[in-house]
Amino acid sequence: MRDVAVIGVGCTEFGEHWGTSFRDLFVKAGALALEDAGVTGEKIDALYVGNMSAGRFVEQEHIGALIADYAGLATNHVPSTRVEAACASGGLAFRQAVIAVASGMEDIVVAAGVEKMTDVGTGASVDMLASAADREWEGFAGATFPGLYAMIANDYMHRYPLTREQLAQVAVKNHENGARNPIAQFQNRITVDTVLNSSLVADPLRLFDCSPITDGAAAVVVVPLDRAREFTDSPVRVLASAQASDTIALHDRRDISTMDATVAAGKRAFAQSGLAHKDIDMVEVHDCFTIAEICAIEDLGFCKKGEAGKLTADGVTALNGDIPVNTSGGLKACGHPVGATGIKQIYEIVSQLRGEAGARQVDAEIGMAHNVGGTGATVVVHILGA
Amino acid sequence: MRDVAVIGVGCTEFGEHWGTSFRDLFVKAGALALEDAGVTGEKIDALYVGNMSAGRFVEQEHIGALIADYAGLATNHVPSTRVEAACASGGLAFRQAVIAVASGMEDIVVAAGVEKMTDVGTGASVDMLASAADREWEGFAGATFPGLYAMIANDYMHRYPLTREQLAQVAVKNHENGARNPIAQFQNRITVDTVLNSSLVADPLRLFDCSPITDGAAAVVVVPLDRAREFTDSPVRVLASAQASDTIALHDRRDISTMDATVAAGKRAFAQSGLAHKDIDMVEVHDCFTIAEICAIEDLGFCKKGEAGKLTADGVTALNGDIPVNTSGGLKACGHPVGATGIKQIYEIVSQLRGEAGARQVDAEIGMAHNVGGTGATVVVHILGA
Repeated sequence: MRDVAVIGVGCTEFGEHWGTSFRDLFVKAGALALEDAGVTGEKIDALYVGNMSAGRFVEQEHIGALIADYAGLATNHVPSTRVEAACASGGLAFRQAVIAVASGMEDIVVAAGVEKMTDVGTGASVDMLASAADREWEGFAGATFPGLYAMIANDYMHRYPLTREQLAQVAVKNHENGARNPIAQFQNRITVDTVLNSSLVADPLRLFDCSPITDGAAAVVVVPLDRAREFTDSPVRVLASAQASDTIALHDRRDISTMDATVAAGKRAFAQSGLAHKDIDMVEVHDCFTIAEICAIEDLGFCKKGEAGKLTADGVTALNGDIPVNTSGGLKACGHPVGATGIKQIYEIVSQLRGEAGARQVDAEIGMAHNVGGTGATVVVHILGA
Repeated sequence: MRDVAVIGVGCTEFGEHWGTSFRDLFVKAGALALEDAGVTGEKIDALYVGNMSAGRFVEQEHIGALIADYAGLATNHVPSTRVEAACASGGLAFRQAVIAVASGMEDIVVAAGVEKMTDVGTGASVDMLASAADREWEGFAGATFPGLYAMIANDYMHRYPLTREQLAQVAVKNHENGARNPIAQFQNRITVDTVLNSSLVADPLRLFDCSPITDGAAAVVVVPLDRAREFTDSPVRVLASAQASDTIALHDRRDISTMDATVAAGKRAFAQSGLAHKDIDMVEVHDCFTIAEICAIEDLGFCKKGEAGKLTADGVTALNGDIPVNTSGGLKACGHPVGATGIKQIYEIVSQLRGEAGARQVDAEIGMAHNVGGTGATVVVHILGA
């Protein structure tokens, strides 16, 4: 297997793009990534696109071909493949691109993610997102994602010492980071009171515990490491690419407060890279809800079970902390266009490792991305190094 | 890159499975493939699943995880990835499995395809299938797949010498083959008159020119060639895996009667394998409509443009002809559960190359599979050898 490097990244602003179509969102992100990589379209060997549910959000399947076409790659008949794993679709698309280059089958590959969620109403969106859980045993019984993560939060808070204020601090920190990120959907700072006084969504989760409905797209370009210097002076190496599955339904898990797929994918990524936790300088985790960030920090092994709330309250995961988490603002503040999120995490890590993260810059040479589908039925973990 | 071999295949009966759920269909095909390969679940390293539109057909996304779970692979947290390219989803899932093994990243990988189409009405199905075309520029204008392929047929018949009777002969041949295939949806023989007297769907295409709405699943197991003999005495080698894209909308093509993506993927597959047309003993092509088989035979280079109608009428593509096409019965008679079709093609070729095709057995050492998404925006071509 060949070593793989990222040579370019691009991302649209995340938000409610009423005037921009699904296909235009992608084209913008792709063009930014190609420009950043200094690669022209005719050199691209393959495309992998992460997308959760364009079939339901915009009544369009066959996303790979659509995007190859609108990106101007149909002329060369460039292979283009859509990958779907609910909210982990982006991370998986990146992983497939890495595998394609590592195999020697392709040289210059674009991995992208896109979702256009605001063409339908919020109620419809929530139902569409519920198709990431077990439709027959969860969705038909009325469970939505806020409800499922509320069950995780209740179970967690019953068993471990996590206060409501500590949980709110996850959102406060992520909004602080989002305020420093020009592509973030929410660039406003909030306080613990903002979270505690926001409307209840599914007890104990309130509005500011939840990531928003977002339109957006992100793209990155990967090549064999030994060709990276043809394109850039600052390639970012892919040190590990790991993926794990778990039961689709929450009620079938061994323990609903521990994402075993996160534990498994994290261990595999550390084993692949030969790195230890102390080597990781920053982490982008999948904070679709505040409780998800708490669980992720622990399940990836950055602290013991039950300690992540205090860690967050103590500022350890803040921009200036020992292990900055979600410097992009995370899903909470940067926004969560479900298929694009996993690629945006790679975008953020590459920006940080290159020292191009502006007001949210941290001192980092190695970063980790953690992307989750559903309530943890798919988890993808990548480690990147400058 | 490592050489890759297929060591096991499984397929459900194709048809209207009112009493079997989406997940049960897959589990059945997967179990058959594992039994055939002599592999137990705990040895599987990864899973790739082709599925077009479970999000719309059964309101379920996150298919990779769902299937890993119901196949009993969640316990080991086996990575599972859904791949979507409309009706080419199965072929692409096989290709991703081949890449994963070729890369050295995984050893024992299952590639599967599944679609459960009869949980919604036929009208809804037709609309869902239209999401494989350009929704904004074709679907919203009222174009359905029969309509799009009728345009291809009209253009083709205007320019090339193809009679209505020759076109019907494609369906007659495929029903003859389907009658010899125990998994086929339609096992009845028909005549040219059956086709010509069937109801008009979209002029000139009649009911018996169209593949049906089908439920079904298929699965195959791939491993590195150098490990294949651990599992089977009759491994089937993957000699080529090629993929190409084209514009999603038919009206943007250079020529609507020639699928340039088929031409490109076919040439790439021949180049990869070092084989010539005379080396290919049988072909499974994507006959979603009779006209599609005519175009495929020509665009893959088995005859010149305009000759495939006569070739078919002369029996060259029949079971006992020089180049048997769609020995399985094709999409027309075997049925077309859209995400499963590409894997069923591999199933058929492996069955033939092993000499296990029963009443439809042909003399074949090398076979080709041709799987199309939409009206040719994605094409996947594989060559397999005994």
